[in-house]
Amino acid sequence: MSKYSFTFLILTIVLFSQCSTSTPDPATFNQPLTFEQAEYAIVIHGGAGTILKKNMTDDKEQQYMKALNDALDIGERILKNGGSSMDAVEQTIQSMENSPLFNAGKGAVFTNAGTNELDASFMEGKNLNAGAVGGVSTIKNPITAARAVMEKSDHVFLSGRGAETFAQDQSIEIVDPTYFYTQRRWDFLQQIKAEDANEQDITPDKKHGTVGCVALDKNGNLAAGTSTGGMTNKRWNRIGDSPIIGAGTYANNATCGVSCTGHGEYFIRYAVAHDISAMMEYKGVTVEEAGDFVINNKLVKAKGTGGAICLDRYGNVAMPFNTEGMYRGYAKPNKREVSIYKE
Amino acid sequence: MSKYSFTFLILTIVLFSQCSTSTPDPATFNQPLTFEQAEYAIVIHGGAGTILKKNMTDDKEQQYMKALNDALDIGERILKNGGSSMDAVEQTIQSMENSPLFNAGKGAVFTNAGTNELDASFMEGKNLNAGAVGGVSTIKNPITAARAVMEKSDHVFLSGRGAETFAQDQSIEIVDPTYFYTQRRWDFLQQIKAEDANEQDITPDKKHGTVGCVALDKNGNLAAGTSTGGMTNKRWNRIGDSPIIGAGTYANNATCGVSCTGHGEYFIRYAVAHDISAMMEYKGVTVEEAGDFVINNKLVKAKGTGGAICLDRYGNVAMPFNTEGMYRGYAKPNKREVSIYKE
Repeated sequence: MSKYSFTFLILTIVLFSQCSTSTPDPATFNQPLTFEQAEYAIVIHGGAGTILKKNMTDDKEQQYMKALNDALDIGERILKNGGSSMDAVEQTIQSMENSPLFNAGKGAVFTNAGTNELDASFMEGKNLNAGAVGGVSTIKNPITAARAVMEKSDHVFLSGRGAETFAQDQSIEIVDPTYFYTQRRWDFLQQIKAEDANEQDITPDKKHGTVGCVALDKNGNLAAGTSTGGMTNKRWNRIGDSPIIGAGTYANNATCGVSCTGHGEYFIRYAVAHDISAMMEYKGVTVEEAGDFVINNKLVKAKGTGGAICLDRYGNVAMPFNTEGMYRGYAKPNKREVSIYKE
Repeated sequence: MSKYSFTFLILTIVLFSQCSTSTPDPATFNQPLTFEQAEYAIVIHGGAGTILKKNMTDDKEQQYMKALNDALDIGERILKNGGSSMDAVEQTIQSMENSPLFNAGKGAVFTNAGTNELDASFMEGKNLNAGAVGGVSTIKNPITAARAVMEKSDHVFLSGRGAETFAQDQSIEIVDPTYFYTQRRWDFLQQIKAEDANEQDITPDKKHGTVGCVALDKNGNLAAGTSTGGMTNKRWNRIGDSPIIGAGTYANNATCGVSCTGHGEYFIRYAVAHDISAMMEYKGVTVEEAGDFVINNKLVKAKGTGGAICLDRYGNVAMPFNTEGMYRGYAKPNKREVSIYKE
């Protein structure tokens, strides 16, 4: 080998080694065991809480089951046709936001002032890009605004009037605040106010509700999103976990995607969505083990009620919750499950 | 041993084992090696960025060194006298908020609209209680409002006008928005606007700045807090990492307390404060190793500029940053260090 060939070889090795370390890979040192790879997968929730069969009419139950199946249909069609997990998450959540059944979008609950303040967040597992909006009152589909913050701004989290101005600039559909009026949620606000005034003991999870979706596409990319109307009778422009990356939503191709629902304050304090991802990353446990430990051990000890949907890059689904029920479902090739109550 | 004594012994063992598992302890399964226990410790930062000796006058440098030492004095006095880490964090940060030198409180930078929108968060390591305010314009010391949200409300995160109303109800000092006017920050907004208009390449970290504090008291309790004026020329009610539990601030007696500063969007996406804590919890590494890996490996790969101050329950301090400098310092019994530049 001549002196020049040797120099060239060394240079090539040096350059190649620099290339291989310059690719950002947020978390690769502790991978779970290899599982069978699902071609695609999608998982959704429509809120967790005191959801008991004895309090549900057959008609209501069917409405929820249909809305959950419709939402899964939308996302699954996109994934089956080779679409991105981001499109699947956005459009699946849009369909749940447009339903009056769930506490998000059209069905958002009312604040103490009788207004609606909506929150949403969105995250891409490939590069940890993220976007969120908090306290918006005129954006028809907050999840779309959250995705736009991620893709069209230098920021992650925009709030209030500023977020609405940004959404309008992006030609995202703006509605009159009265769009979010539903009689059922209005009546519920009056009931909660009366109970609060009488200092009655209200099950905290009665006030909450959220929708969320995590998807894995044929390119192996995860995405996650969460959208909510927040907490009935909330005051002081309270922000819950749903628009907070790490609390209500997280996605990392190296670990999993997560969307949470429940008593938001606990999900913020325990950074639940990121904690599930971090436990997989640093302990090398499975998505089922991580989800179960955080929701059914840590949160239960803290008395934090709620649940999460989790999906790893192999398409393994976990839907842990520590409440009576959680509206939930998932779809993979030739497999679908939709359920409401604890089995 | 009689049959009754044996039954009693078994009962005692069963009861005792139940007692020991019923105490909520968020994270105890992977503890770092035992270190020498410091009686107390406090660590602060005043922002990270392109801070170079060649751009600093002697006078300016002395002003910063004095402000950092004054802040440490306040916190150390409280800790030395047996006060709580929460009081130390709050009063230390107050002193930095009241200084025009730092981008927090009095010295807050201006938004694109020429207003000031301040954020802060606070966390208690004993029970993972937390509080935060975002986008407030009339609260003199946002750190005090953040602590009040934690202690006096059922919520973690209040924003905008609602947070201000809450603070007023709690008799927290309210000021006219003009209180936050400083000529230096106003001139800087005009300069940034001109540079933005000319599409000049602005070092992103020039726009940022934050103050933060983590303390360990004689009872072994950690507390952490962060306060900021956000990002110069920010629009759309952008919220950064400082008021976000898990991103800008985290504290857990079982692991460490953390306060971050830097390009907030990256700190949200990487859930930096919680990630440092999670790495200690799940991998059993030291606070130095966790802080260094997240700031100087993960964030550097992602091109996220900034730093963090970290303190574990033994009083071990880590102050990693990946920028040219970070205003920082710490104090323990018979030990103090204050510095600005990279050594």
